[in-house]
Amino acid sequence: MGEQEKEASLPSKNNFSEWYNELLQIAKIMDVRYPVKGLYVWHPFGFTIRKKSYSIMRELLDRDHEETMFPLLIPEAEFMKEAQHIKGFEDEVYWVTHGGTSPLEVNLALRPTSETAIYPMYKLWVRSHADLPLRLYQIVNTFRYETKHTRPLIRLREITSFKEAHTVHATWDEAAWQVDEAIRIYTEFYRRLAIPILSSKRPEWDKFPGADYTIAVDSLMPDGRTLQVGTAHHLGDNFAKTFEITYEDSEGEQVYAHQTCYGVSERCLAALISTHGDDKGLVLPPEVAPVQVVIIPIIFKKPEEVLAACEKVAEELKDAGINVKTDDSDKRPGAKYYKWEMQGVPIRLEIGPRDLKNKAAMMARRDTGEKEQIPLEDIASTIKDTFADVHKNLYSQAEAQLREHIFLCEGLEEIKDKLAHGIVQTYWCGKEDCGKEMEDVIGAGILGIPGEQPDCKGKKCPLCGEEAANSIYIARTY
Amino acid sequence: MGEQEKEASLPSKNNFSEWYNELLQIAKIMDVRYPVKGLYVWHPFGFTIRKKSYSIMRELLDRDHEETMFPLLIPEAEFMKEAQHIKGFEDEVYWVTHGGTSPLEVNLALRPTSETAIYPMYKLWVRSHADLPLRLYQIVNTFRYETKHTRPLIRLREITSFKEAHTVHATWDEAAWQVDEAIRIYTEFYRRLAIPILSSKRPEWDKFPGADYTIAVDSLMPDGRTLQVGTAHHLGDNFAKTFEITYEDSEGEQVYAHQTCYGVSERCLAALISTHGDDKGLVLPPEVAPVQVVIIPIIFKKPEEVLAACEKVAEELKDAGINVKTDDSDKRPGAKYYKWEMQGVPIRLEIGPRDLKNKAAMMARRDTGEKEQIPLEDIASTIKDTFADVHKNLYSQAEAQLREHIFLCEGLEEIKDKLAHGIVQTYWCGKEDCGKEMEDVIGAGILGIPGEQPDCKGKKCPLCGEEAANSIYIARTY
Repeated sequence: MGEQEKEASLPSKNNFSEWYNELLQIAKIMDVRYPVKGLYVWHPFGFTIRKKSYSIMRELLDRDHEETMFPLLIPEAEFMKEAQHIKGFEDEVYWVTHGGTSPLEVNLALRPTSETAIYPMYKLWVRSHADLPLRLYQIVNTFRYETKHTRPLIRLREITSFKEAHTVHATWDEAAWQVDEAIRIYTEFYRRLAIPILSSKRPEWDKFPGADYTIAVDSLMPDGRTLQVGTAHHLGDNFAKTFEITYEDSEGEQVYAHQTCYGVSERCLAALISTHGDDKGLVLPPEVAPVQVVIIPIIFKKPEEVLAACEKVAEELKDAGINVKTDDSDKRPGAKYYKWEMQGVPIRLEIGPRDLKNKAAMMARRDTGEKEQIPLEDIASTIKDTFADVHKNLYSQAEAQLREHIFLCEGLEEIKDKLAHGIVQTYWCGKEDCGKEMEDVIGAGILGIPGEQPDCKGKKCPLCGEEAANSIYIARTY
Repeated sequence: MGEQEKEASLPSKNNFSEWYNELLQIAKIMDVRYPVKGLYVWHPFGFTIRKKSYSIMRELLDRDHEETMFPLLIPEAEFMKEAQHIKGFEDEVYWVTHGGTSPLEVNLALRPTSETAIYPMYKLWVRSHADLPLRLYQIVNTFRYETKHTRPLIRLREITSFKEAHTVHATWDEAAWQVDEAIRIYTEFYRRLAIPILSSKRPEWDKFPGADYTIAVDSLMPDGRTLQVGTAHHLGDNFAKTFEITYEDSEGEQVYAHQTCYGVSERCLAALISTHGDDKGLVLPPEVAPVQVVIIPIIFKKPEEVLAACEKVAEELKDAGINVKTDDSDKRPGAKYYKWEMQGVPIRLEIGPRDLKNKAAMMARRDTGEKEQIPLEDIASTIKDTFADVHKNLYSQAEAQLREHIFLCEGLEEIKDKLAHGIVQTYWCGKEDCGKEMEDVIGAGILGIPGEQPDCKGKKCPLCGEEAANSIYIARTY
């Protein structure tokens, strides 16, 4: 697809916004030139990262969820059934009004999320206690008519990869357990992507429309802002009442079911790219790297011998299940390094005549830049051990970053000051008025109340000065 | 999901239409009760068959194609660029006209197919000869505002699984080769699903809007009608001219590229279900069966011993990569047989005390109904051999069916008569008037001209009596 990568150069990651936009294009993640605002095109390379990441999600969910697929189009009457839900989405919904050249009898919403598509079917499917718990998920495209500034993978009009799970339970408590379980699943998912996350209970005014409560997970972006990368909602029996989802309990009574839903979008990939990337381009955890090892033959003499050795190593790595590519193109080694570093290949092997004499290869790690000679013997297991180490290193680096960017503050001025650099943990009396005013005064959002609380004894709400009920996270958010 | 399967009973496959609709529901493929005509819900079981089938497609395409994803929404101006194309689709396109409560500035089409979404990007991506051939594909939801009778998997308003490939080549001949290659890929894909297909070149009036020509593949349905299960189109440089897709040739001239596109929808699953199923329910080739082996413990004495033996066999099969399920529920064996036969599980193993004494299990094949005692020793390899045999048997049965239902006829009356039972192969002078009149007179469609031609010497067009240019297939089509 063209030679344009030769001339492209990446801005420094310190200019995060520019770096991000350029990287998506240069590293062949997405093309932003599609002629509709907020819609983007996946390059095959980016799409492979997506596939690998969502395979991890499927692996984690398939343990006790089942995958399914519901229609994109939701009839207006179903969509309009749940009052809170409509209020939350009415400004953002795309409407299909015409089929061919004629107006439709019933307008159809493009799903912004699928509660109102799925729950009329749950009404038919859930009959008795034996049908519960019901845990389904789908990975689908969803749509939001975003009027704010759009940004690839982060704020889109077509979310092409929305993983949404919808569960039904007998009791409120079981649904609450499932919400916690969703957060555990997401924590594990992000651990596999080497991304540490913070989870917190969103304030009332920021919960999912129609939910009892919402727990969200956020990751830290390089500019100190946070990115909401997953949410889990306890729906109580609110939707069950609207959609008449009942089951027969052990006494033979029809009672309302309790529900949860939880979702992750391709924002997970925005976090992946942003957390690990550097001034040279992408840095990818080996598990999701489309190319895991690139072999560069160093040919100035004995070309056949070197190429044969490269081929042999490539075969050995392939047999061990490693995605490997040999770059025997005519480019200079430097140009090759540049290209594969840009694409985040975790390990580069250089093999030349001197290496062969030593029965060795030069291994360069993308994450640390370290170079080391490794023996050709048993090379696949050396590479796999290094993969594990790369993942561990990426995670601890990111975790250190996150820890260093959470500031425990008590006064408003200090809060404002620290918010320029990251996430603030402070205290809150718990009153909605106070929370909303705090957001206004400091110009940032309350993420929510973390599950693990420090000792709040004697701590005061920075706004009203009353005793703190909880600690909270505040951040500038995407 | 309920106990309703107990009461459900399947009509005979002789009443194909009823059988098909009931089977989709009883065997948990799709739920047809979604409140919009032509939109259906995948049950997890059906969705697993879909996933396994599309993995085969991915495996075949990934050899020299790359997977990608383009937006669903196409701006009106792009959609309206290619005159023939619009004419072919204008009655079938869903239009998004509103975002939130306001009208959009530009109406957006839900893709009925993606030429007009993809080719503006190809214009940007294709620069030089070195960028060619370009072979991308995507598996996406597409939409058709069908006014005809809709039917799950066959005629839908949301095609949830449209696999479409779009390729760009330097020359017309290379594109023609690619069209043939697409048909080879589809033939292999359907062979893996144990479905024999017929390929033929569609007549001019039935080609893809905007194409030079179209080759289609059709499968035979149990009622003698055919189902178009794949198409490949040579687009010439028609779209290249409209979307300005040019490349620099070796002389440094900008010349128009040549293109193809080819697609398969979830009709492949309609063919799968219809070809192999019987009066007891689904019959699935092992490769796409969600459950490949079901183990039924026969417990009237020594329950622990039997259950432990079943567990051991299950482990052994799992270790060999086989999807196995042990049904140790409280149901009678007969009810279990019924259930798993309905879901098309290729092999049932019954293990009871007597079998254990013989160090054996009773193996029942879904495809033939045959029962046979097999040794427990090395059971995984016995099962795998049987899988291969099941696949072979399903394919030859279907091939025999197809062969028996192609009738070589010459006179109009005979053609009409045989069309009630299957596909007619006859002759045609090649004139469009004659072809269209033939369709009118006999009330069936010309599928097209098969690639392999019998000797047409001395054969006459049944309508005008002039010398035949080609043999053709005619059929009642879905």
